[in-house]
Amino acid sequence: MLTAADAIGFAAATMTTVSFVPQVLRIVRTRSAHDISWWMFGIFSVGVALWLGYGLILDALPVVLANAVTLVLAVTILVLKWRYGRDLPPPRYGAAQGTDDGRKAR
Amino acid sequence: MLTAADAIGFAAATMTTVSFVPQVLRIVRTRSAHDISWWMFGIFSVGVALWLGYGLILDALPVVLANAVTLVLAVTILVLKWRYGRDLPPPRYGAAQGTDDGRKAR
Repeated sequence: MLTAADAIGFAAATMTTVSFVPQVLRIVRTRSAHDISWWMFGIFSVGVALWLGYGLILDALPVVLANAVTLVLAVTILVLKWRYGRDLPPPRYGAAQGTDDGRKAR
Repeated sequence: MLTAADAIGFAAATMTTVSFVPQVLRIVRTRSAHDISWWMFGIFSVGVALWLGYGLILDALPVVLANAVTLVLAVTILVLKWRYGRDLPPPRYGAAQGTDDGRKAR
């Protein structure tokens, strides 16, 4: 039987997992990940991988599923940071006069 | 007695909690949170608050402690996003002539 605590736990797991989706979408949309911390998503990804191992050892399916999805999303953000997070972000609001990296706003 | 699974769980909880510290520090240092998603940290914060409630109901101290710290850090990032994440980020590299967003290579 599903207790109130179980329901809160499932809601909590769902929210802390799906929350990464809008961050992925924002980076893809703006093509900018300058303000994203490598260290945050790096350490977080290792931590989530450990949670996944913990869930596998305990054979705890909800822990395994939630952390597998979160790991994919967190690593996706790391890949996007690598792609779009260079130190000089491309201009986003208009063209500049040549001191930028050559990419212009469309 | 501490099992291997316990040790992995503690390491996982520590890493997914402290990972937020470098993101806080990065925003404070660069004074920019443009690329941070409101939705990510908003949904994540609600989820962590639910985890905190779950831990309180079950009287699970590690769950309570880890999520209390994470909640403070995630809400701090939301406050910093409000402070530094406006659509036009403040100039960081020097004054510009008006058509770009004010950021120049140093």
